[in-house]
Amino acid sequence: MTSTASNPTATAATNYSADRHANFNGLKCKECGTEYEAKAIHVCELCFGPLEVVYDYEAIAEKVSRESIKEGPISIWRYREFLPVATDDYIDTSTGMTPLLKANRLARRLGIKELYIKNDAVNMPTLSFKDRVVSVALSRARELGFSTVSCASTGNLANSTAAIAAHAGLDCCVFIPADLEAGKVLGTLVYAPKVFAVQGNYDQVNRLCSEVANTHGWGFVNINLRPYYSEGSKTLGFEVAEQLGWKLPDHIVAPLASGSLYTKIYKGFQEFVKVGLVDDKPVRFSGAQAEGCSPIAQAFREGRDFIAPVKPKTIAKSIAIGNPADGVYALDIARKTNGNIESVNDAEIVEGMKLLAETEGVFTETAGGTTIAVLKKLVEAGKINPDETTVVYITGNGLKTQEAVQGYIGEPLQIEPKLDSFERAFERSLTLDRLEWQTVSV
Amino acid sequence: MTSTASNPTATAATNYSADRHANFNGLKCKECGTEYEAKAIHVCELCFGPLEVVYDYEAIAEKVSRESIKEGPISIWRYREFLPVATDDYIDTSTGMTPLLKANRLARRLGIKELYIKNDAVNMPTLSFKDRVVSVALSRARELGFSTVSCASTGNLANSTAAIAAHAGLDCCVFIPADLEAGKVLGTLVYAPKVFAVQGNYDQVNRLCSEVANTHGWGFVNINLRPYYSEGSKTLGFEVAEQLGWKLPDHIVAPLASGSLYTKIYKGFQEFVKVGLVDDKPVRFSGAQAEGCSPIAQAFREGRDFIAPVKPKTIAKSIAIGNPADGVYALDIARKTNGNIESVNDAEIVEGMKLLAETEGVFTETAGGTTIAVLKKLVEAGKINPDETTVVYITGNGLKTQEAVQGYIGEPLQIEPKLDSFERAFERSLTLDRLEWQTVSV
Ligand SMILES: [Zn+2]
Ligand SMILES: [Zn+2]
Repeated sequence: MTSTASNPTATAATNYSADRHANFNGLKCKECGTEYEAKAIHVCELCFGPLEVVYDYEAIAEKVSRESIKEGPISIWRYREFLPVATDDYIDTSTGMTPLLKANRLARRLGIKELYIKNDAVNMPTLSFKDRVVSVALSRARELGFSTVSCASTGNLANSTAAIAAHAGLDCCVFIPADLEAGKVLGTLVYAPKVFAVQGNYDQVNRLCSEVANTHGWGFVNINLRPYYSEGSKTLGFEVAEQLGWKLPDHIVAPLASGSLYTKIYKGFQEFVKVGLVDDKPVRFSGAQAEGCSPIAQAFREGRDFIAPVKPKTIAKSIAIGNPADGVYALDIARKTNGNIESVNDAEIVEGMKLLAETEGVFTETAGGTTIAVLKKLVEAGKINPDETTVVYITGNGLKTQEAVQGYIGEPLQIEPKLDSFERAFERSLTLDRLEWQTVSV
Repeated sequence: MTSTASNPTATAATNYSADRHANFNGLKCKECGTEYEAKAIHVCELCFGPLEVVYDYEAIAEKVSRESIKEGPISIWRYREFLPVATDDYIDTSTGMTPLLKANRLARRLGIKELYIKNDAVNMPTLSFKDRVVSVALSRARELGFSTVSCASTGNLANSTAAIAAHAGLDCCVFIPADLEAGKVLGTLVYAPKVFAVQGNYDQVNRLCSEVANTHGWGFVNINLRPYYSEGSKTLGFEVAEQLGWKLPDHIVAPLASGSLYTKIYKGFQEFVKVGLVDDKPVRFSGAQAEGCSPIAQAFREGRDFIAPVKPKTIAKSIAIGNPADGVYALDIARKTNGNIESVNDAEIVEGMKLLAETEGVFTETAGGTTIAVLKKLVEAGKINPDETTVVYITGNGLKTQEAVQGYIGEPLQIEPKLDSFERAFERSLTLDRLEWQTVSV
């Protein structure tokens, strides 16, 4: 049973002060260690380092077991003891617990033995992993008293913030770059938030939003609420460990945008080890970027430990962040786990989307195409061992970036509603590769 | 844990003859009762009536309990004892177990007390209820030895058949009307089936496919495999009963295309009663059609017990079946359960899509808009009692029919990446209704 059926909706009168379940007790600077209250802040006042939630892992270890998790809701909230939400009044739209698909046909095609697709292309409600982070951020936003929530987005985040805010009855303002894919704009507008299309790239949108957060006092999920928001991505680590039968994989491949997702999957695995839910073991972390926006892959290749910002130019817009906030942490994890960070070009990205669809029936967006193409490249370069249990993270749905494959997947064969018209077309189709179909008229 | 992680993939060498789990032992004509073997046939040779699967309910009752189902996979296959698949080698792409969302905000807007959305807009893998029926049909097709599977489709079925066939490694041919929405065509082509676009409406496509099934010996999921295929929809009844805490609702509202979905939800409830999983009680069945293709609603209104076929003309293409195969059975159920069958026009359909998105964060396609608009109409007419526990079935995702809402949901406000540009736009937005946004330049 999904817990949404019984999850009570918040009322303005809810008393949040009880905090009876809170396993976290503040924020801490990731760089200098300065501690802060668990408010809507994200940057250290002393050193400008990012702030992270501080948990009481002993308290968590006492509360959770494999059994208690198994009996929880079929959503990210089965891991609520690990999430920075103080009350039981979280927003549950059945986010998470997406399939871990055993990808036998793709594995065979690539020549590896045990491959899994963690399929957030079908995450609920808006078909990307962003539903995880937004569910956590808006739950916390409501606890902190915000009535207007907002985000700076490359598309998926806009969809998710608008949808989950609508479900929860929160006012919502969304900021997007003006050149976004049509499906992502429409898939935001339909929930009736205020949408501002900024004539600039994502990094400019982001800077503008920081100013707006200060002047208007709104809860920006990926700015002032970022310490809570980003914790939602840990559930991508938790779920894979649980779905593999409470074991960690040997190797994971994930896309890199800001680098946050990647570092939080790592953190999720570590936390499960820490509280005794899984045994510790080495997990190699590999990362995927689009060549047209690959500042982390460039730094990795050149052995640098700093990121040189770039100006994005790629069809993989949802991961096109030229100045990635968590880039250096991602670099560090790739290096210390003996992983790799690789990039692929736009043509390879489209091929990656097609390969996954044809072999596994999973239609992903450009970010997923990037990850599959990098997987292929790493296998071919011998950088993924055929015997490693490998998990690939697919983070968004192909219906949102239809422009990317249009023109590369052929066209239907046009026929009349008569058997002989079909037979002629079918005969013809047997001699065609699908790439040629688009130029054929029968 | 999803069972996909451990579900072995079929090999050609699998011995299907064992049938050790089969709880069904043939087909039976729904009209004259003539019995047939459980092969790929769908029409009675004597009276041309539709064939249905015959189960051994005593065997099922002995095998299932609430506990055994709860321990099954998080997919339709938790109900496998009720499904017409003989072996354990079914195709599991995590289809089913979609959220039953408690729709408090929509309920309040409509003035009723307890409303649930059964949300197959996020069904896996292709975001419509068709994944349920196709999973069953292709599993059975493989058992029966088919290597090429096919379908006549208004779009969602094409997506689903192509995707699940790709995952299972089956050859696939898809037939669609030539005027289908772009998203549904592209969302089929990407899986690399052969796609035939027929210059005609769905009923013409369907007739052509019957001929092709005879001449080519393919497994058409909704033609010669229809008795197995249609049983997949029962899971929409099973899941709602389980998710309500092993109880039946008071009233359901579902879309009517061929009428099959609606009759199978009814059958699902009945079967759960029959084997003792839920208590019997009256459930009112109401149905939704688009005015531009409403042969069942017309018959209901006029008190007829036969269907007069119509020529479809509506934006709700996925339910635009002018000659619905199960129309008379749907009529019968609506009448004997004291339900209603109602229709709404295209403008009301778009309003229905927007209403669901704005209040609950669920973006559905035109079929879902039809169902929500009919729900609203029935409540306003006093035909749904405010105290009834009501479940509305949402069967597909809005990203597939973007054309339908484009132009009705406003546009983003264009701004420069500067605070003062934002402030001016924001001031302006406070005075605007979203319908006006599309005509405003800031
Ligand atoms: Zn600091
Ligand atoms: Zn008969």
